Amino acid sequence: MTGGRLIGVGVGPGDPELLTLKAMRVLKEADVVAHFAKLGNGSNARAIVASWLRSGVEELPLLYPVTTEIQKDEPRYRDTLREFYDGAAAAVAAHLDAGRVVAVICEGDPLFYGSYMHLHVRLARNYPTEIIAGVTGMSGCWSAAGLPIAQGDDVFTAIPGSLPEEELVRRLREADAVVVMKLGRHLPKVRRALERTGRLARAMYVERGTMPGAVVTPLVDKSDDCAPYFAVVLVPGWEQRP
Amino acid sequence: MTGGRLIGVGVGPGDPELLTLKAMRVLKEADVVAHFAKLGNGSNARAIVASWLRSGVEELPLLYPVTTEIQKDEPRYRDTLREFYDGAAAAVAAHLDAGRVVAVICEGDPLFYGSYMHLHVRLARNYPTEIIAGVTGMSGCWSAAGLPIAQGDDVFTAIPGSLPEEELVRRLREADAVVVMKLGRHLPKVRRALERTGRLARAMYVERGTMPGAVVTPLVDKSDDCAPYFAVVLVPGWEQRP
Repeated sequence: MTGGRLIGVGVGPGDPELLTLKAMRVLKEADVVAHFAKLGNGSNARAIVASWLRSGVEELPLLYPVTTEIQKDEPRYRDTLREFYDGAAAAVAAHLDAGRVVAVICEGDPLFYGSYMHLHVRLARNYPTEIIAGVTGMSGCWSAAGLPIAQGDDVFTAIPGSLPEEELVRRLREADAVVVMKLGRHLPKVRRALERTGRLARAMYVERGTMPGAVVTPLVDKSDDCAPYFAVVLVPGWEQRP
Repeated sequence: MTGGRLIGVGVGPGDPELLTLKAMRVLKEADVVAHFAKLGNGSNARAIVASWLRSGVEELPLLYPVTTEIQKDEPRYRDTLREFYDGAAAAVAAHLDAGRVVAVICEGDPLFYGSYMHLHVRLARNYPTEIIAGVTGMSGCWSAAGLPIAQGDDVFTAIPGSLPEEELVRRLREADAVVVMKLGRHLPKVRRALERTGRLARAMYVERGTMPGAVVTPLVDKSDDCAPYFAVVLVPGWEQRP
């Protein structure tokens, strides 16, 4: 058997129209479309491309095990995830061994904080592999906000909100332009870190950037600390404009 | 007159197939397509979308003045650029005032180190404005290299190669995942900074990421210091993989 091919396909930040022409073509050509999701939730990537899926195409859902009962720093958490990724890679490999083209669809860009990366490191050495870059979630957010993020000699930094407060403060002090990602329950801590570094006034909160029900507001005007996991805070650089 | 509308359109990193469906639609609908270029050079953004341009669409080239005889830190450099951007914004505004839809096409993403930003800050307050996010040049580069760039709690940093060597060293020490952009004549300095921070071994050099004639090579294997302005060096994070 030959012809098996792995394709990591970025499907962009949420608006189905922000799919690339290349992603669209590959979706039509693939034998199997694989997507990650949490058990019990639908896949966000699949929702984005739903109207472009070829009728009757074989789908391979890769369902994250429920891990809420395990602390992230426990070895058991890493072990559970490792086993899950090993199993997901084996499921994809079975299709590749049968000569099929497998498109793994990913929100945003496949190699920028994407679940696909866990398959890539397990499979790309053994199978022909292609990556189709996608529009990142953060690009979707600063575009929705109409907020020029970085220019000229600015240093741009993307910081996971999950970092400890002191680490956030240190990073915020250093950066010109910043995106704080993966907010969720970390928003109060992120807010404090922005305040402590004098950057709260310039911070913009964006939720569901390019999707229906998008929220775009200066963070100082947001009166609660409820934020979904994929919400971001943007702090634009480019303070010296010609 | 009403109906004038400004649209900043990201056209992606170079491969015309990495245009989004939305960018494609807007290109077909716009009355005027504007693009930045250096005097005497063609516009890279225009080259990317050339085959998608509506026949007979009005084009508005915005031609950077030649500034090679002026040092970047001279006030005259900033003044020359400011005058140029003011003039470009006035040329676009004339079309908007006449009720036309003007699409300003931009390589990569419009609000991430893009020339369009200079129009945006001059016009977005006065005219209805929309941004269409695009695939960034750096996403195109790490996708071409098949290089997972950042994951989990990684801090991701984009650093202009134009920074002084000591500043590059300081930034490289702090960052987990790094893209050094705008290499050009800065490559020898960037190489020294990577060496000094122990990151040279993991550094990948990418030139013309998603275009014909792409160059993807470990930086240690690149025997010369010739690099175009848009080449990048990637240093992947994600050293702890489950």
